[in-house]
Amino acid sequence: MTVAIKSLAAMTTRAVYDKLAALNADIATLAALSSVLGWDQQTMMPPKGADVRTRQSVFIDTVLHERASSKELGDILHELQARQKSGDLEKELNEYELANIRIGLRDYKQIVLKPVELAQARSRLSNEAPIAWTAARKESDFNKLAPFLKDWIKISRDWAQIKIKAGTAPEASRIHNEALSLLTTEEDKKKCFKGYYQALMDDYEIGFKQSTLVELFDGLKEKLVPLIAKIKAKGQPHDDSCITGNFDIERQTKFSHRIATELGFDTDAGRLDVSAHPMTTGTHPNDVRMTTRYTENLFSEGITSTIHETGHSLYEQGRNKKYDGQPVSQAMSLGIHESQSLLWERMVGLGRPFWTYALPVLKEMFPEKENVQSATVENIYNAFNRVEPGFIRVEADEVTYHLHVILRYELEVALIEGELEVEDIPKAWNQKMKDYLGVEVTEDRVGCLQDIHWSVGLWGYFPTYSLGAINAVQIFNAAKKQIPDLEAHLAKGDFHILKEWLNKNIHEKGSLYQSGEELITVVTGEKLNVNYFINHLVDKYTAIYDL
Amino acid sequence: MTVAIKSLAAMTTRAVYDKLAALNADIATLAALSSVLGWDQQTMMPPKGADVRTRQSVFIDTVLHERASSKELGDILHELQARQKSGDLEKELNEYELANIRIGLRDYKQIVLKPVELAQARSRLSNEAPIAWTAARKESDFNKLAPFLKDWIKISRDWAQIKIKAGTAPEASRIHNEALSLLTTEEDKKKCFKGYYQALMDDYEIGFKQSTLVELFDGLKEKLVPLIAKIKAKGQPHDDSCITGNFDIERQTKFSHRIATELGFDTDAGRLDVSAHPMTTGTHPNDVRMTTRYTENLFSEGITSTIHETGHSLYEQGRNKKYDGQPVSQAMSLGIHESQSLLWERMVGLGRPFWTYALPVLKEMFPEKENVQSATVENIYNAFNRVEPGFIRVEADEVTYHLHVILRYELEVALIEGELEVEDIPKAWNQKMKDYLGVEVTEDRVGCLQDIHWSVGLWGYFPTYSLGAINAVQIFNAAKKQIPDLEAHLAKGDFHILKEWLNKNIHEKGSLYQSGEELITVVTGEKLNVNYFINHLVDKYTAIYDL
Repeated sequence: MTVAIKSLAAMTTRAVYDKLAALNADIATLAALSSVLGWDQQTMMPPKGADVRTRQSVFIDTVLHERASSKELGDILHELQARQKSGDLEKELNEYELANIRIGLRDYKQIVLKPVELAQARSRLSNEAPIAWTAARKESDFNKLAPFLKDWIKISRDWAQIKIKAGTAPEASRIHNEALSLLTTEEDKKKCFKGYYQALMDDYEIGFKQSTLVELFDGLKEKLVPLIAKIKAKGQPHDDSCITGNFDIERQTKFSHRIATELGFDTDAGRLDVSAHPMTTGTHPNDVRMTTRYTENLFSEGITSTIHETGHSLYEQGRNKKYDGQPVSQAMSLGIHESQSLLWERMVGLGRPFWTYALPVLKEMFPEKENVQSATVENIYNAFNRVEPGFIRVEADEVTYHLHVILRYELEVALIEGELEVEDIPKAWNQKMKDYLGVEVTEDRVGCLQDIHWSVGLWGYFPTYSLGAINAVQIFNAAKKQIPDLEAHLAKGDFHILKEWLNKNIHEKGSLYQSGEELITVVTGEKLNVNYFINHLVDKYTAIYDL
Repeated sequence: MTVAIKSLAAMTTRAVYDKLAALNADIATLAALSSVLGWDQQTMMPPKGADVRTRQSVFIDTVLHERASSKELGDILHELQARQKSGDLEKELNEYELANIRIGLRDYKQIVLKPVELAQARSRLSNEAPIAWTAARKESDFNKLAPFLKDWIKISRDWAQIKIKAGTAPEASRIHNEALSLLTTEEDKKKCFKGYYQALMDDYEIGFKQSTLVELFDGLKEKLVPLIAKIKAKGQPHDDSCITGNFDIERQTKFSHRIATELGFDTDAGRLDVSAHPMTTGTHPNDVRMTTRYTENLFSEGITSTIHETGHSLYEQGRNKKYDGQPVSQAMSLGIHESQSLLWERMVGLGRPFWTYALPVLKEMFPEKENVQSATVENIYNAFNRVEPGFIRVEADEVTYHLHVILRYELEVALIEGELEVEDIPKAWNQKMKDYLGVEVTEDRVGCLQDIHWSVGLWGYFPTYSLGAINAVQIFNAAKKQIPDLEAHLAKGDFHILKEWLNKNIHEKGSLYQSGEELITVVTGEKLNVNYFINHLVDKYTAIYDL
């Protein structure tokens, strides 16, 4: 051991960095393998292959964990950290290389921090809770899921506590310590979970402050709740008959493939298949596999999912190949990833310019469908942009969607920080649905039992969906300012201009910056500002619904 | 190290065996991973994914090699070997478990035997030679390939020599030592490559003696050369108009899937897809993936390939799950594997009973094709069983096919053992084509440059194709004796009776026996006998061609 450390100390900074890069490349290869196996499982694997696939995945994950937590990797990272402190690093490495060290140190600290028992408990719950969730949802019986949620909250708190103590989520430590300083008894201090949600959220949206999120969400609630009420008061939604009826699956598939390719998806470096839940797996920029799903009498779902996943895929295909296999080449965060899918799905795919281009293609593909043949761009624009408050998040439109997310965020915080008991979830859920969307939940199946997220341990994850939408609007606004006549280009089907702008400004930057917020500031020239998003929704739907 | 060995010695035999089984299971998981990646590469991977796939495959192969040659595995195997010598093992382990130790020792000895330099040279040539071969074939220029073949022969001899010296191919050592004993000068002894071919062949057909092969091949040549001449002299081949013309690919696909399923392929434990070269990958009995290919104006190719690969797949799906992940559960040898594909392709798929069942299905699928609708079983039987000597092995019928194999075998032996120079391959090839098949080779593209095998290092492999056919006939004859009214069952589409018989007698036996020959003897009650095969061909084609 001493020998290895000595020899590291004797090496040039470049040589030590190269050792880091080589270890990173192996870790990336393992992650890529894991991703190919995951894709295969969702799309191709025969059902009886499940057990042997589990063995393969566990094997790869174990080797990946060994490598990512190896003493060799730690020694190299700490050697580089020591040189950074002495100011040597900045002279020899560029900003991308420095980012690799920063991310490497953070990830390493985090991975060696997690006790084996916690990892095992997570793994066990991740298997058992979704089974309980499936049964609970089927029977609309929340009690079947409740004990598992309690276990998840306990485990999540344990993990948050570890991070707060170790200082890997600095904002969470700050919040927690501030709260502690206001408490006097040891008893109270023991029960203080302030900052825990921030610590959990940090796993999905690195560096994003909960205080910023509260500001964004307060702004959203203030404007969207009355907007939705106004739309509802207006009565009947717009006619969507131009996209109703049965659409032949084979031609839906063709249409989706054509649109994905036109948007810039490189089919020599990726695939589009079908799975029960649409997804994108980013093995490598040269091998990006996405899926969608088609339903014969739900045309809008197939094309919307395809455009959404194409947005994710363009991010993955556009990652920086110069830093191939290195952490800096990875996507910045979930909120930025979702900004790319939503920018294409909503800012482009729900817009008039896109349908000016796409409607003739659709007409060409479905010559026998009279409702398609007689549709105008205005018809299809209105049909795709209906606002209808409902029970289900994944079926929600772009206005009501965020109130579903805010509701979940508020419950999660209250549960993690000890202000809400698991038993009281259904009541709290239903009250918020009424307050925010004016909807009376009839049963938990379509209420607090609808999402799998909590059962698989995704606590602190939901906010990234709305963050993605807020980011998307601000980024699209910047693109419109920087690309002359962007909408005219889109209307002609010239999507490559936008794609290349995103490649350069978002995709190739990878994880260069400290947070998604920092990336947004660099790209758009101003701090994250929820008003772009609010104005977009208010203007768009005031016009559509003539409010 | 001493500690580990001591603790092994202190363990019960069952406990040591269990340690072996656990290591084997990991090795099997890695092999399965490698196989999934290979399948994905041939069927699904986008073209630009090739580089990153190579990295993934090399990574898995490296870990696999580390595990399969680890000191821990060696210590366990040697501990068990020591206990076997003292007679302890047979009391505690059953015959399948003993076979695992036997195969483990053999494989371990072989893997630690191969020097790194040799493995690297093989790996380099495996990449470079096929590229040269592609160019050489395209331009019909043998000189472009010749230097690579020389390198392959050198490397193959090196490997054979290592095996002969280490005694891992006992029959090869015997042949070599006998040859040496007849030589007097050191110079001559140095140039003696006798037994080298036997050593190479042992990698593909474990325990099979070259002397047996010579006997089989001499018997074949003696009977097939005049049979082919007689058929040729007869003039026009049978009418095959009932299967000519264009067959819609989508319905060919449906037909192939239906037949594969009827033959017993479990689609819950496998897939049938399309690739440039039909293949079967046996990840696990519960996840067997096969491919075929369809050409619109070549109906016979698609269905024949499908049935062939289904034969391989039934073997893989039928492997012994009780010894899951253990060497004994693996297929016996290439010659036995090929016996399963050929039994279904030729003994079943080219027979009257099969078409009695399948012709109505075909008519149902292609109602618009008049030539199909008017065909009788006799028409289709004759159309599928035409004998026509040609240049290309993979396009050859079941009679002429084996002369293509014998020709390659004879050239390989002469090349490896130093009796033929690479430069003389084209001349020797063309002479044998004339002698055996009465065919004048017009250019090397359709002569000695047609197969990729030598370029990828498969020296000693070709004989397994003919062995498979010889095995298939003898096995099918045994099945006919043991299953009452087998052909009547086949004519009704009751294929499961044959499949289950093969499951029990071949598939589940795995690698229990020392060689494919031993398995044949156990299953059929008599030694491997080429006369079954010869009589099958002579009787069948004498009738078809009214000789």
